[in-house]
Amino acid sequence: MTSPARSFFAPVELAHASRLINHGPTVLVTSAHGGRANVMAAAWSMPVEFTPPRVAVVIDKSTFTRELVAAGGGFALCVPGAALARATFQAGSCSGREGDKFVRLGLRWRPGPVLGMPVLEDGCAAWLECRLIPEPHTEQAYDTCFAEVVAAAADARIFSGGRWAFGEGNEDLQTIHHLGAGRFVRAGGVIEAG
Amino acid sequence: MTSPARSFFAPVELAHASRLINHGPTVLVTSAHGGRANVMAAAWSMPVEFTPPRVAVVIDKSTFTRELVAAGGGFALCVPGAALARATFQAGSCSGREGDKFVRLGLRWRPGPVLGMPVLEDGCAAWLECRLIPEPHTEQAYDTCFAEVVAAAADARIFSGGRWAFGEGNEDLQTIHHLGAGRFVRAGGVIEAG
Repeated sequence: MTSPARSFFAPVELAHASRLINHGPTVLVTSAHGGRANVMAAAWSMPVEFTPPRVAVVIDKSTFTRELVAAGGGFALCVPGAALARATFQAGSCSGREGDKFVRLGLRWRPGPVLGMPVLEDGCAAWLECRLIPEPHTEQAYDTCFAEVVAAAADARIFSGGRWAFGEGNEDLQTIHHLGAGRFVRAGGVIEAG
Repeated sequence: MTSPARSFFAPVELAHASRLINHGPTVLVTSAHGGRANVMAAAWSMPVEFTPPRVAVVIDKSTFTRELVAAGGGFALCVPGAALARATFQAGSCSGREGDKFVRLGLRWRPGPVLGMPVLEDGCAAWLECRLIPEPHTEQAYDTCFAEVVAAAADARIFSGGRWAFGEGNEDLQTIHHLGAGRFVRAGGVIEAG
């Protein structure tokens, strides 16, 4: 655990937190409990409520992350930029039971402000620190974990004033969306339909 | 309800159905019951299981769609291409209680093969016909509806052999991802991380 030399991250109002994952990016789910921490990739997450900001994410019951989430009572959703596509795929291809995945993947984290969940900034566009809302049935039947967002932040070079700003010059921070088997599409090409 | 003149749609194996929404596209949720049909936009959906293929989607309890889904026992998730960005935004900005939204938005549908849910092909990249799995608690607490995919199809010009093929020449079919307030990003720029 090392702090990055500098960060462009700034807090995001909780009322805007859903926008960080509204467009369906693949995320890194981080978790920590009892001196251990882990990171996994998840293509399956979504907001479920604006206020209070709530999310759902699918975390397989066989994973080490699921153990840590249950024990620690929360997780963070970190939104990797395109520069982390390879690390994101690798995070989804091995287990944290076998060793510290942050170290293996070269990902630096710091504790989130409310729950102390690991948050990633270097190479990420945003993060949401989330408190688990225990829902035993949906966790069991669908591996679906509900949670309330208690803090959020984003890299101001790509998200500020409550809005994403995808454009030339911030390609490395643009979100990635997993198609399967290690193939991602990058979000880009803004369409104004409103 | 008119059939399109021609369609490039081909069935998708149920084992591959999750890939159609794995990358987080905004979808059109269609529903039908008792001679009425409706369409709404939803940015909040995700797969929750590969086999059997299951999905979750957030449908606000105040919507006409929610009424039809409960009464009809299912819905379809249709994946609009970039050419439908404006119609998708409009579908999210008015209610089907006030009149036939398909007509108003110029969207042609046909009944899905298993449940008869309206499926859209013209301008869409894919659709998934889904049978509701009643979950009163999550529907009430989180507006989150779980369902099993019972049939799926995609436009072979952008999805075939179980894989997306985003590239030059099919931009109009490339999926759209809602940032909020009528701004979408188009999926594109494939990154091979595997």
